[in-house]
Amino acid sequence: MTTQRSCDVVVVGGGLSGLYAARLLAAAGANVLVLEAQNRVGGRTLTGHFCDGTFVDDGGQWVSPGQDCIAALAEELGVRLFPSWSEGATVHWRTGRRIVSKDLFLPEDGDALSATRQAAATLATMAASVPPEAPWTAPQAAEWDAITLHNWLRTHVESMAARRTLATAIEGVFARNSAPTSLLAALFWIRCGDPLSPFLVTSDLGPERRFDGGAEQLSQRMAEALGQRVICGAAVTQISQSRDAARVSGGDIVVSAQRAILTIPPALTARLHYEPPLPALRDHLAQRASMRWVIKVHCRYRRRFWVDEGLSGQTISDEGAVRVCADNSPPSGAPGVLVGFIEEVEAMRLVSRSAADRRAAVLAALVRYFGPEAGEPLEYREKNWGDDPFCRGVDGGYWPQGVWTGYGQALRAPIGTLHWAGTETASIWNGKMEGALLSGSRAMEEVLQALTQI
Amino acid sequence: MTTQRSCDVVVVGGGLSGLYAARLLAAAGANVLVLEAQNRVGGRTLTGHFCDGTFVDDGGQWVSPGQDCIAALAEELGVRLFPSWSEGATVHWRTGRRIVSKDLFLPEDGDALSATRQAAATLATMAASVPPEAPWTAPQAAEWDAITLHNWLRTHVESMAARRTLATAIEGVFARNSAPTSLLAALFWIRCGDPLSPFLVTSDLGPERRFDGGAEQLSQRMAEALGQRVICGAAVTQISQSRDAARVSGGDIVVSAQRAILTIPPALTARLHYEPPLPALRDHLAQRASMRWVIKVHCRYRRRFWVDEGLSGQTISDEGAVRVCADNSPPSGAPGVLVGFIEEVEAMRLVSRSAADRRAAVLAALVRYFGPEAGEPLEYREKNWGDDPFCRGVDGGYWPQGVWTGYGQALRAPIGTLHWAGTETASIWNGKMEGALLSGSRAMEEVLQALTQI
Repeated sequence: MTTQRSCDVVVVGGGLSGLYAARLLAAAGANVLVLEAQNRVGGRTLTGHFCDGTFVDDGGQWVSPGQDCIAALAEELGVRLFPSWSEGATVHWRTGRRIVSKDLFLPEDGDALSATRQAAATLATMAASVPPEAPWTAPQAAEWDAITLHNWLRTHVESMAARRTLATAIEGVFARNSAPTSLLAALFWIRCGDPLSPFLVTSDLGPERRFDGGAEQLSQRMAEALGQRVICGAAVTQISQSRDAARVSGGDIVVSAQRAILTIPPALTARLHYEPPLPALRDHLAQRASMRWVIKVHCRYRRRFWVDEGLSGQTISDEGAVRVCADNSPPSGAPGVLVGFIEEVEAMRLVSRSAADRRAAVLAALVRYFGPEAGEPLEYREKNWGDDPFCRGVDGGYWPQGVWTGYGQALRAPIGTLHWAGTETASIWNGKMEGALLSGSRAMEEVLQALTQI
Repeated sequence: MTTQRSCDVVVVGGGLSGLYAARLLAAAGANVLVLEAQNRVGGRTLTGHFCDGTFVDDGGQWVSPGQDCIAALAEELGVRLFPSWSEGATVHWRTGRRIVSKDLFLPEDGDALSATRQAAATLATMAASVPPEAPWTAPQAAEWDAITLHNWLRTHVESMAARRTLATAIEGVFARNSAPTSLLAALFWIRCGDPLSPFLVTSDLGPERRFDGGAEQLSQRMAEALGQRVICGAAVTQISQSRDAARVSGGDIVVSAQRAILTIPPALTARLHYEPPLPALRDHLAQRASMRWVIKVHCRYRRRFWVDEGLSGQTISDEGAVRVCADNSPPSGAPGVLVGFIEEVEAMRLVSRSAADRRAAVLAALVRYFGPEAGEPLEYREKNWGDDPFCRGVDGGYWPQGVWTGYGQALRAPIGTLHWAGTETASIWNGKMEGALLSGSRAMEEVLQALTQI
């Protein structure tokens, strides 16, 4: 039996952006309903537990200095932040050698650090001319969207180590297998986040932080407060709209509302059926905003044994199943937890292997970085975000050439009664949890303004 | 009320590939059903009529020498082919000047023709090492998929006119606004079709041909022969499969079959809901195989007035709403019909304008090419393939860097009981009507083999 509901605003997606938009709308007195496809809220934040009860974030987890909206929300909701474990030296794995260093670069890299700082300053200056709300209107948008970040780096940065470091800082990934990021997209990314802050002269704003008990708690507590206004297990498949109403159908429920907020990542928006169909510009944006495919893996150990060697748990590596690792232990410091990321090319390569093979490949890398003890975790877990039918990846903001200038204007533009949210629509902290909240807040404002005009 | 049906093979999509697969399967004695979303068959072939009754192909229309499968099918179905109108000189519009020439290049282009021929020969040799069934296995696949066609052209071809001509011949479009085609994708394209044949020493195989009465007739006649085995108005939204059966739901109908053939373009395949979900590799291929957005426009005139000036109706232009034009008059030669293509960047620019503005922009270009008479057509029509919810473009084979090597292996690989067809899956004449038929034939063979093994 289909249930018919009606409300002022229907929100599609019970992740951070959707729940935050709903929370703000409810606080403003609007009658709101949230439809969530899965049987849990949280979207790309997902907190699980090891067998011993230790929480583990299989999804988004880090809060950077300056991400004030999410810090304030956490306080409101009574979720505590604690500094990420990051003291100690980094393990560099390069061309088959293991080098432990507190520095980002090795002596063999020569003046890479100053080259990196210089290029970072140039890029930051260029990025300052990119309006984060509308990158396609930057004075040099056409020129910058016609080349890739890598084109620019090859021409402007002689040091290979500096180039690699900058690319990784900006793209957040070592082994990409997508169309390369356009320079304009990279500059937008620099403008709206902090990827270059390690190389720019700024005062130390403090450490990265994590949520004690996991990031999904934010969504859970927002959902609890919203109560029956959040409906799980309602995977929206169809959206029809007339001039002044949207009809959103998901599972057994049909909701009629004056406005709808869609929070699903741009790449997945075109998988719903719209009546009337999405305009070509918005549909083609969806065709070009592919998600970044990451498998997040965690190992639990009896203790943080890497600390004995003075290591932070962080790695910089040029080979292996996991190249970026970190200490993901709980605030108490026990047990010891290492997190690693299987990214793009490696994810593609390993996804067709057996789970045992994949585990073996991950552990082999960890042993190279942290010694034999790393090869015998008490527990191993992985979350393949590429397989997740409602996310298909972790973020979708690394756009190739021509997408921002061609299709960017369709990213957030409302279509009749439909408004867009989700971290990929954020103009600050795009791709981050903070961006998700800011996008929800922006969509809430759009909708409230529309409702008062009716 | 939902109707339940069962059969050996269900085909999703009543375009050329799906109907041809069904035709061959039926001939082989299989019990087959075709589900077509729209209320007509034909997919990306679409034949309409001007007010005076003249047929006009708003979709695929040209048959090239060597496309033997479609020529044979046309004969079987009693649809006559006739040579495209192409006699006469080309109008070149370059940097604001109109030059009429029988040649591809202008005197100011210097030795561009020999440069083009030389580069074409080199590219053809490279393409010969790309297996069209599996481009990712080419010996230099990794290297070639890491750069773009334009990278290669810039490095290897000095003449700008030659570079432009080659890029246009291969990519089939002047003003792209997608991630640029990878060199490997371009070589695959060269290997599996004839884009370079004008520049290679080959015997003249004959003219391009068109269907008298339009290309959609092929699908219509195949559908007539299949009779009640073709069900229109059944837009498939859900596909569930068990180990030995597929359940395909579309509109009011649910079909259970031993095998399913999906003919929708790769970019759109992930818009259905699959149970179990598509593997990440196949889903991410869909995220990266964006369609080419073209608006096809036609003008009808009392007569083929451009012939008076010795013109073929063909144009090569560096500006304007339509840059590629041709004489699309019926075989009788009356009325006169010009066809033009509004491609990518121009489509994006013009789609937000009013229909009147768009028409004015097209006519302004035609007047520049063919004189004032071109500005006063008796009739003007356009088909925006980017808006078409079941196609979203004309073809989807120009893949950017990293897609063939990363995701190509997922293009045709059956997933359980699901097989893939459609012209984008063809290894010969990919993107063409011929490729659609060949893909249908290949899928038919896969399915027949699977059925005999059950």
